[in-house]
Amino acid sequence: MQRVFVTGAAGFIGSSLVDRLLADGVRVVGWDDFSTGQRRFLESALQHPGFQLHEGDNLDLPALTRAMAGCDTVLHLAANADVRFGTEHPSRDLQQNTVATFHVLEAMRANRIKRIAFSSTGSVYGEAVVIPTPEDAPFPIQTSLYGASKVAGESLIQAYAEGFGFEAYIFRFVSILGERYTHGHVFDFYRQLLDHPDHLNVLGDGLQRKSYLYVQDCIDAILHVLHAGTATHAKHRTQVYNLGTPEYVRVNDSIRFICSALGLQPELRYTGGDRGWIGDNPFIFLDTAKIQATGWKPKLTIEAGIVKTLRWLQQNEWVYVHRR
Amino acid sequence: MQRVFVTGAAGFIGSSLVDRLLADGVRVVGWDDFSTGQRRFLESALQHPGFQLHEGDNLDLPALTRAMAGCDTVLHLAANADVRFGTEHPSRDLQQNTVATFHVLEAMRANRIKRIAFSSTGSVYGEAVVIPTPEDAPFPIQTSLYGASKVAGESLIQAYAEGFGFEAYIFRFVSILGERYTHGHVFDFYRQLLDHPDHLNVLGDGLQRKSYLYVQDCIDAILHVLHAGTATHAKHRTQVYNLGTPEYVRVNDSIRFICSALGLQPELRYTGGDRGWIGDNPFIFLDTAKIQATGWKPKLTIEAGIVKTLRWLQQNEWVYVHRR
Repeated sequence: MQRVFVTGAAGFIGSSLVDRLLADGVRVVGWDDFSTGQRRFLESALQHPGFQLHEGDNLDLPALTRAMAGCDTVLHLAANADVRFGTEHPSRDLQQNTVATFHVLEAMRANRIKRIAFSSTGSVYGEAVVIPTPEDAPFPIQTSLYGASKVAGESLIQAYAEGFGFEAYIFRFVSILGERYTHGHVFDFYRQLLDHPDHLNVLGDGLQRKSYLYVQDCIDAILHVLHAGTATHAKHRTQVYNLGTPEYVRVNDSIRFICSALGLQPELRYTGGDRGWIGDNPFIFLDTAKIQATGWKPKLTIEAGIVKTLRWLQQNEWVYVHRR
Repeated sequence: MQRVFVTGAAGFIGSSLVDRLLADGVRVVGWDDFSTGQRRFLESALQHPGFQLHEGDNLDLPALTRAMAGCDTVLHLAANADVRFGTEHPSRDLQQNTVATFHVLEAMRANRIKRIAFSSTGSVYGEAVVIPTPEDAPFPIQTSLYGASKVAGESLIQAYAEGFGFEAYIFRFVSILGERYTHGHVFDFYRQLLDHPDHLNVLGDGLQRKSYLYVQDCIDAILHVLHAGTATHAKHRTQVYNLGTPEYVRVNDSIRFICSALGLQPELRYTGGDRGWIGDNPFIFLDTAKIQATGWKPKLTIEAGIVKTLRWLQQNEWVYVHRR
């Protein structure tokens, strides 16, 4: 990797990856439409001579194609990452996750770029029948528009890898957290506790089991696999990896970590039911044996990741103001 | 089912389904853009008082929504069914299979129609690692743009079923053949033998193993499952069924059936290799235990289906002239 194109470069994971690549001496072309990305996340990158930023929309294929010129690898992280509100605007996931991914692939083809890494999600397993869920779990039934749009993106990438000789890495993430985290349950809980430290509204019954991964561990994993080039030796030129920690926590555990770190004892008010929203999966736990077999393993536990996230939010309360 | 909306109503399977529904006393609204559909296939339906035809494009959402008004069930068969040439025009599968399916779902939502059947494909299993391949086979890697676009369509339907309370039936077809068959290997072989009865060019090595289903058996299966309403009792409001015969044939068997029926002994000229084209799957054989457990079974063997197809082509050579 000499020159890497990062979509969603101003996002939580994207900007963290940009910083890491620059620190590793890789030149980076960043691409973002700043619909949810934050310029402040790129402050340091923008000082770096190896970084170029292009502002643009994945739905603008000609501009995307021009911006990508001269790169050898694409890290496609741009997405509508809002898993909860899909049914309020069903076309958003289709456009921003599926059609956008198609455009990224077409821009790569036009530029003869053949290596791609893609941030997918454990949501593609729907309500998994095998837990912990391996990459070759039974063909799932999708339960959210977000998951559906990511399956579609994965499938397009796989077909391009087969049809056009691309080398593709698909990473199915659990929820990622850490510095620059700007949406998700820690974000929501901390905002609530800023507003009303005496109580916390919790979607569902608090018993939902979820897995999380610290952003720097996530980035380590992606770069580790890209450097190993595992798809070049495999039967299929697409390799799929679950990315997560070998543990899960209940929502109530997570609340306990947060409240303890903040020194608060709010009254917990549950909305009830075994899930937070339509399409929410009450038990997400991915089998990460495949990625661990490559030699990577996470450095932080879920608890440590949650506390790190909280500390960053405490120091960066501006994210609550600046968020759309 | 009182009034059924059929997309791809002028196509091979669509028009056969329209005729069957009308014969069963169901009112039918047909929708087709006539890009590959044939008006001649609707000649009989157009005489029937229970049939209405709307000419339109699935990409025109307002027109699709208007046409669908007053229906209670959608049979979504319209598709780019060309599995071979995906890499020559990568956007076609995305538009005609994925985005079109999204529009069908949105038009249903606008009209408060909640029951859908969808013609998917065994191609979604890619190069299956379990053969015969059951519906819950290991999560596959896509090997064609066609397969990818159908996975995307399936996933959208599943997410709508979950998010909006739709009742959905997804049928993963093997290759369908029979009357009105206008593309596929029997079509191509017969055309060749009309042009040059002395030899036959065969893609691959002739050893590819494929499964086929006769169109009237296919229609029986779809209507049987819709009448049983299996999704209304299930955990998920989407039910997926493989549709095929419990047998497969080699391409060479198929050639033997065709040549024997025609009384020809052409020289066979193989292009070589174990597959016909990039993304071709040299062994397609679906496990049909799930659909057979509902009480349906196919009436025709693959050989009988191939011979019936050939007889129809012999009586309808106009399809070779009229085809785009």
